[in-house]
Amino acid sequence: MTACVHDHSRWGTADQIGAANYLTVEKRLAALRSVKQGKIYDVSHVISMNAPYMAPNQTPFLLSMWASWKESIKRRRKMGFTNDAGSNVDRLEMTTHVGTHIDALGHFSSGDKLYNGNCAEEVVSNWGLDRLGIEHAPPMISRGIMLDVSRFDGGEFLEPGRVVTPDDLQRACDEARVKIESGDIVMIRTGWGRFFGVDNARYLHGEPGIDVPAAHWLTDREVVAIGTDNMAVEVLPNPDAGKSLPVHQYTLAEAGTYLIENLALEELARDRVYEFCFILLATKYRGATGCPVRPIAVI
Amino acid sequence: MTACVHDHSRWGTADQIGAANYLTVEKRLAALRSVKQGKIYDVSHVISMNAPYMAPNQTPFLLSMWASWKESIKRRRKMGFTNDAGSNVDRLEMTTHVGTHIDALGHFSSGDKLYNGNCAEEVVSNWGLDRLGIEHAPPMISRGIMLDVSRFDGGEFLEPGRVVTPDDLQRACDEARVKIESGDIVMIRTGWGRFFGVDNARYLHGEPGIDVPAAHWLTDREVVAIGTDNMAVEVLPNPDAGKSLPVHQYTLAEAGTYLIENLALEELARDRVYEFCFILLATKYRGATGCPVRPIAVI
Amino acid sequence: MTACVHDHSRWGTADQIGAANYLTVEKRLAALRSVKQGKIYDVSHVISMNAPYMAPNQTPFLLSMWASWKESIKRRRKMGFTNDAGSNVDRLEMTTHVGTHIDALGHFSSGDKLYNGNCAEEVVSNWGLDRLGIEHAPPMISRGIMLDVSRFDGGEFLEPGRVVTPDDLQRACDEARVKIESGDIVMIRTGWGRFFGVDNARYLHGEPGIDVPAAHWLTDREVVAIGTDNMAVEVLPNPDAGKSLPVHQYTLAEAGTYLIENLALEELARDRVYEFCFILLATKYRGATGCPVRPIAVI
Amino acid sequence: MTACVHDHSRWGTADQIGAANYLTVEKRLAALRSVKQGKIYDVSHVISMNAPYMAPNQTPFLLSMWASWKESIKRRRKMGFTNDAGSNVDRLEMTTHVGTHIDALGHFSSGDKLYNGNCAEEVVSNWGLDRLGIEHAPPMISRGIMLDVSRFDGGEFLEPGRVVTPDDLQRACDEARVKIESGDIVMIRTGWGRFFGVDNARYLHGEPGIDVPAAHWLTDREVVAIGTDNMAVEVLPNPDAGKSLPVHQYTLAEAGTYLIENLALEELARDRVYEFCFILLATKYRGATGCPVRPIAVI
Repeated sequence: MTACVHDHSRWGTADQIGAANYLTVEKRLAALRSVKQGKIYDVSHVISMNAPYMAPNQTPFLLSMWASWKESIKRRRKMGFTNDAGSNVDRLEMTTHVGTHIDALGHFSSGDKLYNGNCAEEVVSNWGLDRLGIEHAPPMISRGIMLDVSRFDGGEFLEPGRVVTPDDLQRACDEARVKIESGDIVMIRTGWGRFFGVDNARYLHGEPGIDVPAAHWLTDREVVAIGTDNMAVEVLPNPDAGKSLPVHQYTLAEAGTYLIENLALEELARDRVYEFCFILLATKYRGATGCPVRPIAVI
Repeated sequence: MTACVHDHSRWGTADQIGAANYLTVEKRLAALRSVKQGKIYDVSHVISMNAPYMAPNQTPFLLSMWASWKESIKRRRKMGFTNDAGSNVDRLEMTTHVGTHIDALGHFSSGDKLYNGNCAEEVVSNWGLDRLGIEHAPPMISRGIMLDVSRFDGGEFLEPGRVVTPDDLQRACDEARVKIESGDIVMIRTGWGRFFGVDNARYLHGEPGIDVPAAHWLTDREVVAIGTDNMAVEVLPNPDAGKSLPVHQYTLAEAGTYLIENLALEELARDRVYEFCFILLATKYRGATGCPVRPIAVI
Repeated sequence: MTACVHDHSRWGTADQIGAANYLTVEKRLAALRSVKQGKIYDVSHVISMNAPYMAPNQTPFLLSMWASWKESIKRRRKMGFTNDAGSNVDRLEMTTHVGTHIDALGHFSSGDKLYNGNCAEEVVSNWGLDRLGIEHAPPMISRGIMLDVSRFDGGEFLEPGRVVTPDDLQRACDEARVKIESGDIVMIRTGWGRFFGVDNARYLHGEPGIDVPAAHWLTDREVVAIGTDNMAVEVLPNPDAGKSLPVHQYTLAEAGTYLIENLALEELARDRVYEFCFILLATKYRGATGCPVRPIAVI
Repeated sequence: MTACVHDHSRWGTADQIGAANYLTVEKRLAALRSVKQGKIYDVSHVISMNAPYMAPNQTPFLLSMWASWKESIKRRRKMGFTNDAGSNVDRLEMTTHVGTHIDALGHFSSGDKLYNGNCAEEVVSNWGLDRLGIEHAPPMISRGIMLDVSRFDGGEFLEPGRVVTPDDLQRACDEARVKIESGDIVMIRTGWGRFFGVDNARYLHGEPGIDVPAAHWLTDREVVAIGTDNMAVEVLPNPDAGKSLPVHQYTLAEAGTYLIENLALEELARDRVYEFCFILLATKYRGATGCPVRPIAVI
């Protein structure tokens, strides 16, 4: 492993938000003003104990009732209260890359370097990331684009290992009559989302997705984030058998571009909605490498 | 405990969203169109291990690195990969009412009844709520109002046990020159938020807040949710010593009005921003009694 | 469900230890004095993330490093310490019926009744058992008997669904030249343990084991506990298709007899050791329904 | 930090059990044969949510009911079972140094070295210790000695910061008429145990205990383990203000001697029992840095 050396981003040595710098006020106002009907598309899945996860790097989503109404009422009665207010409080445990979620820039390293020349050895502690955690990701309100490549091979979804290329992205743009611009948030529909929570073994066993050239095509256009309806955004397994998750490595650790995974894009596709006001508000868990989110598309 | 009988809401026996029914398309469009500057105020706290919690009904927020880059690279090298992509994945554990969060309607009972005549015995299971969980709370985009009552007693914050009355709310409305309307989301600043994470013992030992009459004043005006810069929205201890958390009981279990707690309202107050487009997107954890959120105010 | 009525054990209404009452001083002294060689057989498995578990009633065993030496040294240096003492502290999460473990008497109910007429509604809380938890199980030092029925069908292990009958137990006793007596702790080897951690899917998909008549045969002889080299002691599926885990129900909730599961009995079998001093010391987790243990056989 | 170099123990480069090598068969047989009455003293505390812990290196002990009888019966009825067997299964979370527990040799480093020249960098992973974990600690059956130094200063317990010196240990030996020998397990009573779970703030704010010279006095006599009725065995704060936990560092990382903490020694003291057969069976959690235990003294 080479020693960690500083190779900084275009936004300066202190930058922790990467491509979120493309989220200008103009972009935000334009997105908000594009809303005509006031209709909301929820592009997230419900997160339950049935959510797929990749062991051993991930653990199952667990939710249990920590304290519940009946005992709560008993305890309050003993304390002299008479209004029988019963509280239910659940406890939740998860690796943060569960369900529909966004990756923090510190989620991935290239060797011992994180985004913007940060040394993993210094930044990654047992209690989270000391820099580049999800709490630094600003609220995202910008133009969203949905590129529907799911039907390109004549079916309803692409097969695992199918690389989504720059040409595929261009073709989907053309069909949707959109052009990717700086500050956009781009979602790519592969059709793979139909197996989320339905056939988790299949969902996790390879997937269609972009490769590094398609990632470059997108980052060249200065997108803020790339989302998909599968677990990893990128094609699995990678066509280059010697590389593991190179798109994660390139986008997060080098380009500073966010990834949004496990999106639910079926309704947008059904209604052929390709352009919208996209809103994603990452919960500010200190030092987290990502977090479950509930992004929406508003038209 | 009286047996659970059905006493349904105005929105019908199947309703699970309560006051979120006031979130009309018109209201949403008006809120979005009110945005002029494109400036975002983040009204949430960072959630860290230092976040206050009420034992024993809550447990501390814990975040630790489950898998990290160094071992990840080692494992991938053994598998023959050469690109040294290192992944950091954290694991998070919490009771869901931590940091800035929203309560689900199923969080509180009145005796053995939850909102809309739901029987707690049937709905509350070890693995969460079978109805009224936070996954049912729709995306909230509506007009937000911030009522700054924090300076009413001549200082910078109200004292614990200080009841925020309907008169206080009216006075704050007058000073802000706003009128609460159906579908609004109202935040009340008590100044108590300054102790969040700074002096947790004090933060949790009583607080200023509304009582049931003020809650009625708000629900009569058909607000969707009531938020504050403290742990419980309502005054603690309650002036009626025989009642524990009656505002929770009334708003959640009876009126179907959401509560948003531990808000960070200092910046809005500093800039005297009292009216804005409010956006809150609750993460859809299946059966959860609430969830941490990152609400924003946009002007 | 019938209302909970009191039907007490032979040891009185306050008894919480059931068949552990058979653990007399005489029995203990005899067991200790039976030790001649001082040789210890460890009859437990290592408990790792690979331990089998039955979802959804059980969750995986998780162990991670909560705090580690490197950061510990850094923190202590900042505090002015110079001796570079680095502490490693792990965090562990599990449902308590993982690996080699003992069941507390409160683990199972018969309808709404637990052992000794205890009402489940009163005893079972969100934070554990208020009675009959594992902290009440006394240290167990007594004669242990290993009955090796694993080869009865001509192979090395019995098949799933194979009922171990009273006749099988008698035959194994005869072959081992032992007679079960009051206070004994009896382990039955089915050979199924070979799949523990090796082929978990198979291990959990049915198993050979005793049925209710064999359980009665053992409780009639006043054994303290029944152990096996599989997950449930009892045959799965039960030959009576209408019954789920009737041996658990009978032994724990009615007879007050403990169950010890996932034992590692191969070495005892290899050396044909059928009688020994058995020692099991359950960790006193308050209110737990069982706990992982490390029982030993000493000869 | 100096680079990790190999400096091996007297038991060879592969040794992972340290002073447990003193646990000879002769020692074991002598201990078992010393038992005359068959009386058991339980020297462990019940472990509950009230157990003291040192944040941030430790987290609270949490136990909750994961699955319970009522829902279990409902589910089984739906599956067609008629015997109403209800299972209660709890889930437990803890840092493993909670309640009465034993430290694994890998719990502490001296710089980047663990016991027997092991490099912490290689051994400590996110998922536990790859060597020196608690699963390697063999069953301990040996002579136990309880040295009651709690009354030496004229009271019933020693004050925090009071160093237990070699002279104190010798004096306690003389009063108990015992002589420490190879293979013994020595427990030192400071009287501090009275605050366990009763006044946790006091319990954790300094404690009486041994210093490095007393540790050497014990390891020179080839003890297997050193136990006390407080959290750290050693005096806190250390008289040498520049050193943090040097006894841990010396005993675990250098001498290979085990530490047993939070013992309950009151009953032994009350009955003036100073010599006994000691039994401790550490649960074999793979890679754990320690584990809760239930040691006993038998006479």
